[in-house]
Amino acid sequence: MNEQKVNDWLASRKQLRENRNAVSLFEALRSGNRTALSSSITLLESSLEKDREIATAIIRLCLPFSGNSVRIGITGVPGVGKSSFIERFGMELIHEGKRIAVLAIDPTSERTGGSILGDKTRMQQLSQEENAFIRPSAAGNTLGGVARKTRETIILCEAAGYDTILVETVGVGQSETMVHSMVDFFLLLLLAGAGDELQGIKRGIMEMADGLAVTKADGENDQRAKLAQRELKNAIHLFPPTASGWIPEVHTCSSVTGERIDAVRNMIHRFEEHAKIKGSFLQNRKDQDRNWMHETLRSLLLEGLYLNPAIHQRTLEMEEAVRQGNISAFEAAEFIYDLYKKQ
Amino acid sequence: MNEQKVNDWLASRKQLRENRNAVSLFEALRSGNRTALSSSITLLESSLEKDREIATAIIRLCLPFSGNSVRIGITGVPGVGKSSFIERFGMELIHEGKRIAVLAIDPTSERTGGSILGDKTRMQQLSQEENAFIRPSAAGNTLGGVARKTRETIILCEAAGYDTILVETVGVGQSETMVHSMVDFFLLLLLAGAGDELQGIKRGIMEMADGLAVTKADGENDQRAKLAQRELKNAIHLFPPTASGWIPEVHTCSSVTGERIDAVRNMIHRFEEHAKIKGSFLQNRKDQDRNWMHETLRSLLLEGLYLNPAIHQRTLEMEEAVRQGNISAFEAAEFIYDLYKKQ
Repeated sequence: MNEQKVNDWLASRKQLRENRNAVSLFEALRSGNRTALSSSITLLESSLEKDREIATAIIRLCLPFSGNSVRIGITGVPGVGKSSFIERFGMELIHEGKRIAVLAIDPTSERTGGSILGDKTRMQQLSQEENAFIRPSAAGNTLGGVARKTRETIILCEAAGYDTILVETVGVGQSETMVHSMVDFFLLLLLAGAGDELQGIKRGIMEMADGLAVTKADGENDQRAKLAQRELKNAIHLFPPTASGWIPEVHTCSSVTGERIDAVRNMIHRFEEHAKIKGSFLQNRKDQDRNWMHETLRSLLLEGLYLNPAIHQRTLEMEEAVRQGNISAFEAAEFIYDLYKKQ
Repeated sequence: MNEQKVNDWLASRKQLRENRNAVSLFEALRSGNRTALSSSITLLESSLEKDREIATAIIRLCLPFSGNSVRIGITGVPGVGKSSFIERFGMELIHEGKRIAVLAIDPTSERTGGSILGDKTRMQQLSQEENAFIRPSAAGNTLGGVARKTRETIILCEAAGYDTILVETVGVGQSETMVHSMVDFFLLLLLAGAGDELQGIKRGIMEMADGLAVTKADGENDQRAKLAQRELKNAIHLFPPTASGWIPEVHTCSSVTGERIDAVRNMIHRFEEHAKIKGSFLQNRKDQDRNWMHETLRSLLLEGLYLNPAIHQRTLEMEEAVRQGNISAFEAAEFIYDLYKKQ
């Protein structure tokens, strides 16, 4: 065989091996094998090109089996008790016969290091359940990268038969918008305080919420939680109505006593029914898919531009020229774009 | 002469003529000729390629003479009395010896038709002043296009010796963010009401404001305006502090009686001093320029992609494939991007 043929043969062998890996992992994952699910997620989180290729093949195989779930985003400032809530709420779902996957988007996870142990420790009961799959936040250089990995993980989890996906995030920064763009229901957890319930919550997050729950509504705190609930109900009225006509509800609950956790559960149930009857449930998912496609395309385009060394150098020069007032920002942009097109 | 030479000669003649046009307009504009300024703005608003080329040349000539001004953005919901305020406020500035230019970004102007007459009518006193230049909102297909034209108009007005630029916009939609990204000081006008001062104002706009003024603070309304002022001052405390340490002020004023218009004027004066001492004044402008360059580059890239007919067709197909669940949003994006790169 000549060299070309050898290379072709090697490439086809490689392709075959990758496909085999993908198919066998997919089949194991579909049959409920948790290790296969974990391995598949590890592949899609990998920075190695060949791992990513296998992951892409697995995702393609999983796609027809995905989507049959309710995706719930959960956010709130640190200290609001997200873990305790998810533990209680998750157990409630398990008792209903649900199979739940808990994922996280945590922009701070880089700093605090890996949190597999952390996640298992903070959700002790849930982590021992056969029907619960807990996966810590994916690491990544960019929030966009982490979001993509999380979204692909949702597809894998759904194909593996998990019918309720909880995506947790911290109530600070841009991660909320990311999570909001990949879930069906967005739940905001709040602490009762002396009139400053909204402090610490970034503007716009309240507006994204489909439901609010004031946590730690037990013992002496119960009255304060109820007061906060009333205030929040009033505030909600100022918001423009959602497209589907769903009016966000405000509840109080306690993860310690477990009281009114079912109220939150019932709210999400009502939302699901409402959105499915109105048709907004599927429509929202389609819109999300469409947005993700365009958003990804946009990122690829910008990366292609800015990661090009020649263009990068020129961009720095143009920034300086604009700074010096030698060229307008618009002309500078046109100059760089022309250069990019010529390449 | 052969054909090539003829073409070269014609091209150089054309270039020369354009340059001559640009230089003569620039010189007239610099000498304070209002018609030259108006004509230059008309050229940059033109949709004809050759007009745009002359405009670009004029802007390049003007750049070294631009920047020596205070750019003030003014927003508020319809009915808040923006025109009356600008009339009073503008006259106050004129009496100080300032030369002011009034521009507008109005996303609704397409619908209401040209508004030159409208602008002159609604600012009757100001429009008769030698030292005031009033230009209605540029028309355009996109808000981005209108913003670019307005920003370029600012450069021309500054080179023409206007030292105070007022950019007006309507307190609805995305135009605020646009205006905010091109001014030094952002003023939000508000109406006093029964506790609902913030209704109608889009979330996030309050946060962008460097100063707030409750208008129509006269007669019976004065007390209500003062009450609103107190409430707004409390609300302001909830905002994160600005980078320069400037704390937004809240004032009341009346465009009818002219009372406390000077308070607003003094606030902006204090801001200017504060920002110049802190260095944030120039830094903010540099950041704005940088952002405009990258924002424009981004728009050009996306237009280049989406306006390509082959890519556009494939994008529609991919959207459908994503909708059908045959391909993930990410893989679809990668597919389109690969196609784009190959072209």
